[in-house]
Amino acid sequence: MKIGVVGLGSMGYGIAASLLRAGHEVVSADVNADAVKRLRAEGGSNEDIAAAAPKLDALVVVVLNAGQAEEVLFGKDGLVGWLPGDAVVMLCVTVAPDFARSAAQKCAQSEVLFLDAPISGGSVKAAQGKLSIMASGTPEAFIRARPALDAMAETVFELGDTAGAGSAMKAVNQMLAGVHIAAMAEAITFGMTQGIDPETFINVIPRCAGTSWMLENRAPHVVSGDFTPHSAIDIWPKDLGIVLDAARASKFAAPITAAALQQFLAASGMGLGREDDAAVAKVYARNAGLTLPGAGN
Amino acid sequence: MKIGVVGLGSMGYGIAASLLRAGHEVVSADVNADAVKRLRAEGGSNEDIAAAAPKLDALVVVVLNAGQAEEVLFGKDGLVGWLPGDAVVMLCVTVAPDFARSAAQKCAQSEVLFLDAPISGGSVKAAQGKLSIMASGTPEAFIRARPALDAMAETVFELGDTAGAGSAMKAVNQMLAGVHIAAMAEAITFGMTQGIDPETFINVIPRCAGTSWMLENRAPHVVSGDFTPHSAIDIWPKDLGIVLDAARASKFAAPITAAALQQFLAASGMGLGREDDAAVAKVYARNAGLTLPGAGN
Repeated sequence: MKIGVVGLGSMGYGIAASLLRAGHEVVSADVNADAVKRLRAEGGSNEDIAAAAPKLDALVVVVLNAGQAEEVLFGKDGLVGWLPGDAVVMLCVTVAPDFARSAAQKCAQSEVLFLDAPISGGSVKAAQGKLSIMASGTPEAFIRARPALDAMAETVFELGDTAGAGSAMKAVNQMLAGVHIAAMAEAITFGMTQGIDPETFINVIPRCAGTSWMLENRAPHVVSGDFTPHSAIDIWPKDLGIVLDAARASKFAAPITAAALQQFLAASGMGLGREDDAAVAKVYARNAGLTLPGAGN
Repeated sequence: MKIGVVGLGSMGYGIAASLLRAGHEVVSADVNADAVKRLRAEGGSNEDIAAAAPKLDALVVVVLNAGQAEEVLFGKDGLVGWLPGDAVVMLCVTVAPDFARSAAQKCAQSEVLFLDAPISGGSVKAAQGKLSIMASGTPEAFIRARPALDAMAETVFELGDTAGAGSAMKAVNQMLAGVHIAAMAEAITFGMTQGIDPETFINVIPRCAGTSWMLENRAPHVVSGDFTPHSAIDIWPKDLGIVLDAARASKFAAPITAAALQQFLAASGMGLGREDDAAVAKVYARNAGLTLPGAGN
């Protein structure tokens, strides 16, 4: 297939590389010209995406947020207007379910297929073509997107024929993931106040009922004091914001998620927005006068 | 060895049965005479624990809380005064680290060994002799307790030679476990407001980064609407209370744990204290006007 990929951040680049590896023709676009150049050197098409749009079978959107997705798809130079009628737009961005529903409607008006397809798994799995995709859309959209899904994902959750369901499940997953990261930070630093060093924490807790996927993935960053971003702090004010906006609209009180959001906001306010999200532990450490391992403070 | 077991609730009974199975002589005590009678029928000693105390090698305390432990060990008819000098007290109750340190001191004054030995794993693992034990104490206490530990536990975390370290790690584990149960409840009900039914939730989330040990263990109770207590709601005001008391004493702000505690308190206030702790989902359901699966409301 001929596939456009818009957004070559760590997730988008990995997706584009996986699509290339599976034999697809990949036309890419990103504000970062170096990323586009690098993908072309790896076998990506040299075409400009606007010029290629009328010939695309699928358009994978992996930009940072709903605003960018809106601009790319439906803005002044929006691509949807140029896509052929049987093309499928795969929206991989974490967005509000309402945004996904609205995007699906606009695509339908342009007679373009739409798959609500938020992704999970991180940049390593993106590069391996082993993402999890929480997808919903019409049977036609699934059929059209299948070759791309096969190249990108290890697991495709098929969540029904309506756009919005995929984004709703992603929101639920992000809610838990964000809470679990902040809870890990709260627990590892609380443990320090009780004489438990972080290294003992990660030797014990992953073998106990208090463990979580995020704890096992992120607590080692606190222990090593290495906050090179795999997933940045600033993801969470955005994603938990999506959750809490949807919750508020549904009159759903989510006090634990709300508390976790405050800790990520504090981390961002401390200037840590670009650090790895495990750096939310620094908020707790600063408040309690603790010194984290390594150069962690 | 000749081992006393005080407290034959679901955890204590399983421990006593595991000790019997390993060939130890077990003298038991509980306010529930039926439980004592049942253990005796399974091979337990017919001796009264007060009479047997001077001949015990170890005394395992598995009562509900610190107040009961204080009474059993150091109260009017406290057993510590009757134990021989080389006996070891194994305190398996979830207590504040300060309480464990104080109990160790009092035992030392009576020249009795002490192991801070909170347990984790639930009643099924207790019955199988496959608990996790977060233990700390002097090398002498570990040596003396070893045959009992071997019979009770699959994993013994040896957390140093000072009482309090075991209870501190248990507090950290409970902090995470409690937060994860409440977060599961928050997420599964939030998902319902977004059109995700609880069954889809447990088909997807355990395979995603948002999962936790507690989510995988407890979310099925919400889906089935079966809140038969494995671990009751009322455990959590106690255990998260221990965490937050220790945190406050250390000037440690724990906003996520504090938010989780409020939800368990609300559940208890709703009269659900004796239900399974997954019933904290009913707080969210009531607040948001949702109907949980099964007879869940």
